[in-house]
Formats: sequence, C-alpha cells, structure tokens
Amino acid sequence: MIRAKVVGAAGYGGVGIIELLLGHPGAEIACLVDAADIGTPISKLYPHLAGFCDMPLLDGNDPRAREPADVVFMSTPDGVGMKLAAAELAAGARVIDYSGDFRFNTPEAYADYATRIGRNPAHAAPELLSESVYGLAELHRSRIAGARLVGNPGCFAVSCILGLAPAVKHALVRLDSLICDCKTGVSGAGKKPSPGFHYPARYDHMNAYKLAGHQHVCEIERELSLQAGAPARVTFTAQVVPICRGIMSSLYAELNAGVTPGQVMEAYRAFYRSEKFVRIFPHDSGIGSSHVRGTNYCNLVVDVDSRTNKLRVISHIDNLVKGQAGSALQNMNIVCGLRENAGLDLPGRYP
Amino acid sequence: MIRAKVVGAAGYGGVGIIELLLGHPGAEIACLVDAADIGTPISKLYPHLAGFCDMPLLDGNDPRAREPADVVFMSTPDGVGMKLAAAELAAGARVIDYSGDFRFNTPEAYADYATRIGRNPAHAAPELLSESVYGLAELHRSRIAGARLVGNPGCFAVSCILGLAPAVKHALVRLDSLICDCKTGVSGAGKKPSPGFHYPARYDHMNAYKLAGHQHVCEIERELSLQAGAPARVTFTAQVVPICRGIMSSLYAELNAGVTPGQVMEAYRAFYRSEKFVRIFPHDSGIGSSHVRGTNYCNLVVDVDSRTNKLRVISHIDNLVKGQAGSALQNMNIVCGLRENAGLDLPGRYP
Amino acid sequence: MIRAKVVGAAGYGGVGIIELLLGHPGAEIACLVDAADIGTPISKLYPHLAGFCDMPLLDGNDPRAREPADVVFMSTPDGVGMKLAAAELAAGARVIDYSGDFRFNTPEAYADYATRIGRNPAHAAPELLSESVYGLAELHRSRIAGARLVGNPGCFAVSCILGLAPAVKHALVRLDSLICDCKTGVSGAGKKPSPGFHYPARYDHMNAYKLAGHQHVCEIERELSLQAGAPARVTFTAQVVPICRGIMSSLYAELNAGVTPGQVMEAYRAFYRSEKFVRIFPHDSGIGSSHVRGTNYCNLVVDVDSRTNKLRVISHIDNLVKGQAGSALQNMNIVCGLRENAGLDLPGRYP
Amino acid sequence: MIRAKVVGAAGYGGVGIIELLLGHPGAEIACLVDAADIGTPISKLYPHLAGFCDMPLLDGNDPRAREPADVVFMSTPDGVGMKLAAAELAAGARVIDYSGDFRFNTPEAYADYATRIGRNPAHAAPELLSESVYGLAELHRSRIAGARLVGNPGCFAVSCILGLAPAVKHALVRLDSLICDCKTGVSGAGKKPSPGFHYPARYDHMNAYKLAGHQHVCEIERELSLQAGAPARVTFTAQVVPICRGIMSSLYAELNAGVTPGQVMEAYRAFYRSEKFVRIFPHDSGIGSSHVRGTNYCNLVVDVDSRTNKLRVISHIDNLVKGQAGSALQNMNIVCGLRENAGLDLPGRYP
Repeated sequence: MIRAKVVGAAGYGGVGIIELLLGHPGAEIACLVDAADIGTPISKLYPHLAGFCDMPLLDGNDPRAREPADVVFMSTPDGVGMKLAAAELAAGARVIDYSGDFRFNTPEAYADYATRIGRNPAHAAPELLSESVYGLAELHRSRIAGARLVGNPGCFAVSCILGLAPAVKHALVRLDSLICDCKTGVSGAGKKPSPGFHYPARYDHMNAYKLAGHQHVCEIERELSLQAGAPARVTFTAQVVPICRGIMSSLYAELNAGVTPGQVMEAYRAFYRSEKFVRIFPHDSGIGSSHVRGTNYCNLVVDVDSRTNKLRVISHIDNLVKGQAGSALQNMNIVCGLRENAGLDLPGRYP
Repeated sequence: MIRAKVVGAAGYGGVGIIELLLGHPGAEIACLVDAADIGTPISKLYPHLAGFCDMPLLDGNDPRAREPADVVFMSTPDGVGMKLAAAELAAGARVIDYSGDFRFNTPEAYADYATRIGRNPAHAAPELLSESVYGLAELHRSRIAGARLVGNPGCFAVSCILGLAPAVKHALVRLDSLICDCKTGVSGAGKKPSPGFHYPARYDHMNAYKLAGHQHVCEIERELSLQAGAPARVTFTAQVVPICRGIMSSLYAELNAGVTPGQVMEAYRAFYRSEKFVRIFPHDSGIGSSHVRGTNYCNLVVDVDSRTNKLRVISHIDNLVKGQAGSALQNMNIVCGLRENAGLDLPGRYP
Repeated sequence: MIRAKVVGAAGYGGVGIIELLLGHPGAEIACLVDAADIGTPISKLYPHLAGFCDMPLLDGNDPRAREPADVVFMSTPDGVGMKLAAAELAAGARVIDYSGDFRFNTPEAYADYATRIGRNPAHAAPELLSESVYGLAELHRSRIAGARLVGNPGCFAVSCILGLAPAVKHALVRLDSLICDCKTGVSGAGKKPSPGFHYPARYDHMNAYKLAGHQHVCEIERELSLQAGAPARVTFTAQVVPICRGIMSSLYAELNAGVTPGQVMEAYRAFYRSEKFVRIFPHDSGIGSSHVRGTNYCNLVVDVDSRTNKLRVISHIDNLVKGQAGSALQNMNIVCGLRENAGLDLPGRYP
Repeated sequence: MIRAKVVGAAGYGGVGIIELLLGHPGAEIACLVDAADIGTPISKLYPHLAGFCDMPLLDGNDPRAREPADVVFMSTPDGVGMKLAAAELAAGARVIDYSGDFRFNTPEAYADYATRIGRNPAHAAPELLSESVYGLAELHRSRIAGARLVGNPGCFAVSCILGLAPAVKHALVRLDSLICDCKTGVSGAGKKPSPGFHYPARYDHMNAYKLAGHQHVCEIERELSLQAGAPARVTFTAQVVPICRGIMSSLYAELNAGVTPGQVMEAYRAFYRSEKFVRIFPHDSGIGSSHVRGTNYCNLVVDVDSRTNKLRVISHIDNLVKGQAGSALQNMNIVCGLRENAGLDLPGRYP
C-alpha cells in the first residue's frame, strides 16, 4: 500500500487528491498538512468527507506529519514546494508538486517564468531543477517513471498542449499562427473568495483576464517547441465562465500548404492511439465540458476549416482532475509502478 | 456476479444506476432496455460513458433483452412497471421499480394514489401488490431482504420520511401540525426538456408548483402513520430551485407538551445510530445540498425552536441517488444479500 | 428636482438606489459617499454605469458631501445610520436608513433586537427613535408621508409581513402557528465575498442558516402583532439558494375554525385592492422569482390546503428592489409628495 | 406617437421589443401578433408584464392586427418576414426584420446564405432585396435613415463586425487571418426548450457547436469586406456557455508589418468617437458580459499581443438587446427621425 502525504490539503487541489486516494485500490492517505485550521478534521471543512476521511490537518512540523511517506503531493502555491521538496526527497519520498516550482529544468527557464508572473526569479532549490520532470504523462511517460520529483502541469497547459501536440509534431501548422482561446470554470481559481468569483458577480458573467500574460504560457510554448523541434509561440487568452469545473480550449493554427483534413485526423488518431485518457470525437458529436467532469479525460474535437485553411481543435478537460489532482494521481501511479489508470477509471456523474 | 438489467436506461434514473453498477464490486450490467433510440449505444447519448459502457439500447422484445437477469431495475414512469413486472418475476428476477406502481400494497391504496395524480385508478397487476415492499431500507430493511418486488420510494418522500420518522414514532410532535417545505433541483424532473426547465427560464428562478397536491404525499403520510401508529397528515409544498441535484426539505411540527430539545436530539440519534446512510449534524454546521451530491447519504440538521415550541428538521439528499438510483442499488444489495453499502461508499466530488 | 445623497454608495444597496434615481423623473443624485475607494468614480467599480453616473465616491467629511440634500439614503450596515442621522436631519434632509437602526421606536425594542443579533444594545441616538417610521408603505403610508426619518424594512421582513398581514389582521389564523420558510438569492448578503458565497461553493448548493435566530424576526413579529392586535410569534427559517436576486417566502398558518377558502381569498384581495405594488396570483399561475426581478412588486400566491386546514402563501419579491432600494425610493416618493410609483413603474427584463 | 406592431411577439425577441417600447417616450405598441396562443394576454405568458402590457396575441389576419402601424417589428424566424413584408410596406409601414431574410441585397447573396443554412435558396420577395438596408447603425446610419425595410443584424455578427471593423477598414491586419471565437448565453437560442438547453444539461456545461458553419458568417464577411474594400474571410466558432444573456467574442488577427499598438488604439478610438453605444475599455479594466446586460452597449477591449504580433479584441454585447431588440429599436429611432438613443439610454441592473 502506497502511503501518500498531502500538503496543502485544505484547498481544492488537496481535497481533489484526497477524494481520489479514498477510491484508489493501492494507496492510502498517510497524513494531511496545511498552514491553517491546524487540528481541524478535514471533514469539518468539507462535510461530504464525514465518515470517509476525518483526519485532522497537521502543521508541517508536527511529528505525525514527518513520518515517512512514499509519495508527497504538494498542493501548494508557487514558492512553497521549492522550499519543502529537498527534505521530502531526502526522507525517501517521491514528490509531485502542483505549482510552477518544478515545471522548468534550469534556473534560467524558471527565472523567465517567475519574472513573467511577478515573482522572485531566484529558485530556492536550483539544484533540484535538472532532475524534475514535467508531469504530462502523454508526452513524458518514460521519464516520469523514473522520476523522484514531478512538476505537475498547469490546467490550461494540459488542455492546450494535448490539443496541439500532434499538429506541431507533424509540422501540420505554421508555428507563428498558434492561438489558444481558453475558457475555464471558476474552481480553477481555488477556494479563496474574491470579488470576481463572488456568486452575484459571477453567476451571469464571463470575461477575459490577464491579457498581458498568463503564467501557463511558458510551459505551453516550451512543450510545443519540444514537440515541433523549433520555437513555437502562442497567443493565449484566459477567460472565466460561470461553470464550476471544466476547461474548454479552442485552439487555432494555419495549416501548412498541402495539408489535408485526412492527414490531420490521422495524425491525431495515431498520436493518441494507445492513450487511455485522451478521446477524439467528431465535430458533430455534441460533446462539452460536463462530459469530462469529475474524470481524468481529455476530450478532443479535431476539425479543419477548409474555407480558411485553419486547424481548429476544441479541447475539454476537468481543470481539477486532468488539470490537477487527476494528473497528479496518474503521475503517482507511473512513478510507483502501478497501473496508470488505477483509481482513475471512473466515468463521472451526469447530469 | 449479479447480473442487472436496466429498463428505461436512457433517462436520468437509468444512467444513474448504470454509473453505480459500473463501480459495483459484485454486479454487472446484463443489458439496457428503452423505448426509443433502439440500437444506439448509451455512450452516444451520454458521452461521459464512452469506453465505460458502450452497450446499445435494446427493445424490450429483443432476445438479448429477454435473457435471464438476477435483478431488473424499472427506471420507468408510472404505469410501465406494473405491466412488465410479472414476466420478469416469472423469469426468476427480482424487480426494483422506481415509479409509484409498487409503493402501495392494496388496490385501494393504489387507486387513492392514482386518482390524486390523475391516472387510471385500476392497477394492471393487483395480484402483485400484496407482496411488494416499500424500498426505504432504513424503515423496512428486513422485509426488503426477502422481497421479490420492491417499490423504490419517491425522492421527496425519502427526505421527508427520514426527517420526520423519529419524531412521529416517539410521539414528540402533534400529528396534525406536520409541514414539509421541500425544494428540489431540476434533475428531479428528468431529462425531457420543458418550458419551465429551459435554461433561460430557470437559471435565476425559483417557484412553487403542484400546490393542489403532489404525488409523493400519499407515501409520506402512509409511512409516517405507520411509524406513529396513528393517522398523520402533512402540508406539503414542492418547490424548484436552480440547482441540478439536491433536495432540501425543511420539516416543521409542533412539539407535544413537555418535550425537551434534549429528548428530541436523543430520539434522532438513537433512531439512526446504526444507519450507514443517515448523518446528523448540529444546527450551526454549515451543511447544504452539495455535501450529499453524488452520494447515497441523507444529512439531517435537527433543531428545536424553543421560542415557538416547534421541531425543525432540515433534510438533505441527492434526489438522483438516495432519492432514486442509490436507494435502488441499496435495495439490490439487501435483496441479493450483499453488503448494504457495496458500490455506495463514495464521498462525492467537491466542489 | 429632489436632490438625493447616497451614503454607502458602493454596496449593492447603494448601486441599486443609484440605478433607480438615474431613471427617476423628479430626482437626481447630489453626491455619493462611502468609506473606501474615495475619489474613485462609481463607474469604475460598476462599469455598467459608465457614461450614466461617473461621480466619485466622497468621504463623508468632504465639503461636497456636506452640501444640502433633500433626501439622504443611508445604505449602510447596522450602527452607521444612528450616528449620522441627527446631523442630516438638522441640515434639513429627510433620512431613509436601510439598516435596523431606525426600525424600532423605543430604546427597549431596539435593545431587544440588538441583543438578538449580538450588537451593543445601547442605541446611539435614542432621542430619534420615537419619530422614526417603519418604511413599509403598504402598512404605514400615512405616517411615512409626514416622516423625517424612515427605517427601511428588512428584505425577508417585507416578503413575510405582506404575505401574512391580511390573515392576521382578519383573525383568519392561529397566531401561535405562523411559519415563515424563506429562501433568498445571494445578493441579499451584499457585495463582500465570503466562503459561503464563493461561486464554486454556491452554484449548486442550497442551505439553511442562522437557525438560532435571524435579525428580521423582530420586525416581522412586531408588525404582525400590530395588525393582529395581539402578540404573534413566527418560526422563521432563512435559506440561501443559487439565485442572484429574489426572495420566495412560503408562509404557513393553521386556519381558525370555520374559516373558508373564499373568506381567505376575499380578505387578501380587499387588503391589497388599491396597492400598486402587490399582485395576487392563483395557485396554478406558474409565477416565480424571476417575474419580479428588477421590480418593486410583491407577487403573492394565496392558497388553502383544505386537507390539513392550513393557509399557505407564497410571497415573491426582488430582495434588492422591494426588499431594499425600491422600497427606499417608494418611501422617498411618499415623503416628498411625489407620485408613489415614480421611477418604479418598470416591468423588469425577461429572461 | 409612433405606433409599433410586433409580429412574433411571444418569443424572446418579441418580449424584448415590448419591454423597450413600454419605456420609450415616443412610441407605443399598436398590437401583438403571433402564430400560437391567440387570444392569450402576453402577460399570461410573461407574468412580469402584468399590469404593464396585457394585450392579447392576435392572429395576423385579425382585423385589429391589420390596422395601420408606423413600424412593424418582425421578430420571426427565417422565411416569415419575406412573406409578410410587402403587404406591410404597401400599407405604409416601415419594416424591421430580425431574421436573415433582409440582410442581403441580391437574390444571389441570399441564396448563398440560405444554402449554407440548409434553407430554400429562392427568396420569396426578391424585388425587395435591393432596397433593404443592413441594420447596423454604426456602419450604415445614413442609409437606415431613409429605409423602408431594415434587415436587423445577427447577434454574433454585431459583436464581430463592431470588434473588427476599425482594424480592417484601416488595413491594420491580414484579411486571411481573422478568427472569431464567440461565446453566447443561452437566450440566443430563443424560448423553445431543447435537450441542449435543458437546465440539468446546461448549468455546468459549455460546448462548441455548428463547427461546419454558422449562419452569421455570411454577413460578417460581407460587412468586413465592405469596410476593407477587399475580400475578408473569418474562421468562426460558436460556443454556448451557461449564461442567460451575453455574447463575448474574442477576435484575433495578424497585424500587418509595422503596425504599432498606438496606431491600433487610435484607429479604434477614432472610429467610435461619436458613437453612443460603443465603449472602449483598457485591457485591465475588469469588464465582462454582465456590464452590458440589459443594455444596448457594445463594450470593446482592444489589445495587441506584441509577442506574437496579433490584434486581440474582446467584444461584449447583450445578445437580446444590441444583438436583437435594442438594435431594432435603435433602427426604429433612426428610421422615424427620433433621437437615436430614445428608450435605450439605460444602464441595466447590477448585479
């Protein structure tokens, strides 16, 4: 039985991994750590867990929080995991960090990211960066398998990278024409109340935000460039709509000369042929965000607008599952040598 | 492995039991029957099931639909189950019917119910009524265990009966003072579109309906009278609010002279002490409908308004789970001698 | 032209009266006062006002805020109006206060209210209480007409008092059997974000709150007792549902012996015959909260449950209009001798 | 007083123009016509209108429906207005048609449109096409002023054309790079219930639809080509999000070489300098769909992504107002020589 410790347990990312671990056949929760509400049972904060998980939140220095764990999930904001990871690794745990702290492999790449989002460009554990692995299993499965330290991807990034990877890898599109028009549900912003997510201000409201630059752009461009073997840049628009869970990314690119719709479809089908968690649907299938809600799936609609010679992909994920805790559990399964979809083979609930 | 057949598979009640059966350790789906979309894979209608259940919908007369099953779930409207049950029973199956067809044990009681809701008062299979058992496990567990035919309870009824049973059983309240003020999410009305549930007409809209009489009142009064050992009547108000899943019933009654808050609390705690699926919360616990969403739990807040000498109980269920498919699966577990919470020990997803 | 000053202009109550004043044929905004964002145009905080009202928020001590106004709307929380009212009255203004500060006429009645809601029981301006008038025009029109100081009613209170006044006035019901089961939209809690009104926590969530006692109960009981000429007490349950605007109060009472449905209907029709803002609908009319949204109307469904001998009234208002700014404007019109529905004869927008 | 007749009065487009006419200082409703519910007062179907407009729905052949009107609003689906317009024009009325029937000026252009949306390519009144004027006042004000027949624009089209017109007119962008990523609220689909707009299927659901081609593309391309003086094509994606009212169109184009952000901003400001109903906001203004709800405004955020050399415009309208009834009333004002914003100078209600 894999024993998992959850740091930042009282946020949406924490409760997401708790829910998944409760249903996992080969893992169990070792302890829950957070920075507030110490001593409070998690089920007091999240009453749906009453009777399922009544463990208290522990301070990180509590002896019970320092007992050995096989895996540590760092469901913490930028800047926390980088301070805690070394000790966890030294104690023998594998670390899966949700933030941007370990998504980059050099201090320079991290500094570029940190600068863009207005953080201190100096990484607190630069010596760990070279061994960290970007935790998008569909692209880096084999390296994740051997990793001690995984940088779990950003939610928007998952949807965009999976949606564009086949096209850029097979040189189907112009790399200077990539547009990611992304809409997210509100849970992506976490559990902290704010004016923009106050129910009366949000229930009938959609808006674009961070037009000057979103933190996920760095990893999207890095991954697409890796696939393309050449520098890729994206125009990225983050938007919030009054949905709880779900990302719908509409992805556009100009097709290279001579590329046919058939080639496009075949490239996507081949790329994801053996992937458990990526499903491809035709353009008239009527799918939408609620069809991946509560699941680890990425549903793709792949389409070509022949009138304008554009590739158009609609990419759907649940931002809290494939965009966060689900990918984290998938990474745990790979790191620990378990069946990759253990605890994740669930269809969700509808409606 | 229990083999289960689902009739009316393409409605919300059908897809609910399919989802639960997919996660059940000791049961599997034998076949799916419906009256429309014959031949269409259920996963085409409900894309979240793609890869999990791609079985086609069968006509009831299809030979594949007539192969023996251990349990038949009749997720069908009033008037259907009564016509199909005898044949299924004759073939050796246990039958769990979602409608009002088998919630009453005499032709007279059925006629009273049918008249109230404007249906033909004559039952199509009156000979089966005496053996049918009302499928609310918390009150009729032992009789369900031996039943061939179970009338699954109405969703509002589950919330009201569980919320008032301890009070009426222990004569804590006046039986002529019972008020059930019930609010339901929209999924309770099923998947069929209608003007009142059209998104623009519903998203910021709440209303009361069927003030002249709701079909669940009969069973509520019958069950509360049984518990009380005397006739009980309820004033019942059905209301719809813009929620997908959830019932919140606010239940009121005048306390009998001398009854103390402590007695009330003790009566409720004792009544549900060994029940898996009923949880009691204090009045300041902050619970609400989303804390039972996707689960088979009934959460009760038990409260006394001493200023006015009233009992007040707030009863929360998910109308599609404890109010429908979850209770049906719970009944299947009991009927088949399985662990009562097999396939139902799930905390739901939050938020 | 009536010149109106709005104190607490940046809250929902403030923006509500601004919107109404912008459409009023005989009034205009003198200035906007608030405690934060001083100097910021209101249209920066509420972009829908851009071009309609770009006045800056002023500190209360700003000379521009101290210029004479005919009417001052105190859209402020409990405890603010009582400190500011005397100076405004001395300067010749009429004051309409949204809070509980001036809803009671004696220091003792105020102390009882304040104690219940956990505030200091001592009123800061007790000498003003005897002249303040409770601002529910349908019951106190003539006294409002001559008032300098109006205590605008609570939103729940408006819906409950208008819904029960005819019944208690005409002794149709037992005064110890009154139950107010009230559901409100989220805007009733104001613009300040909080965990319970964070979109992901609220969008599919309904719950009861403050079961131990809600601040509006005092005024409901006082007003119903006045109408009845005898002490009335209510069991009151506040509930929040995921709606932005709207209150639906389901009101119950036991009919006195011999009272017929016809008598009940006639009593309600007669009571509200000449009222502009109260509309009575039959029980099968299909009305709901969105039909009063954005308007100053109270829609009542009056019903008798003859099986259980209960009166049942469903009362709908928009909590931000008839429950707050609309009643305030109605009171301004009466106080200033204008047509009572000036600026309020609007049907709202649907859907 | 302008007398206006509304055909198709019982749909959302009809009730929208009724609401606006009720508040118009210089117009009144002559009669309401529809194809169903004949004789029913509109206020029975839309209870918020009770007391404001209780006129019955008339059959088109009812003598009361044939009395002369100054303006006829055809709030009818494609194919209706083309059959009725000639008679109305002959009777001396001006006609404003909501559908695609009169958005094109030649039988060939209409046939192209009709073919794309799967309708009969033959127009029923081809002789009227040459005189019809496309009713987007910001681009065609002077021609509308003299028109007898106006083809009111499509809702998506309004948002896209206003958002891109300055850029194409001033040759700031490549005409083969235009992308319109459009999200609409559900009211855009009208009042008719359907599976995709059933509350449980829609409340937490967003999806793209009609990827193969949306009916508004023709008019967008025609208008942008006119502005550009060269053929423009757009990649257009229609998406639905769980909002009632609102369109948010994210518009992208590749900047021509040497075009600076300053030039872009200046072009937009100049283009809309004297327009009442177009407001331009900076990229960090925090505006969104609810800030135009219930109003005739188009709010634009104009932005340049210098990293990728792209123009990005976020265009917000209320699909039922500027996207439908509001534009229709604006056209009536122009056609009738009234103040262009009469009855439209309203800020909406927030939240």
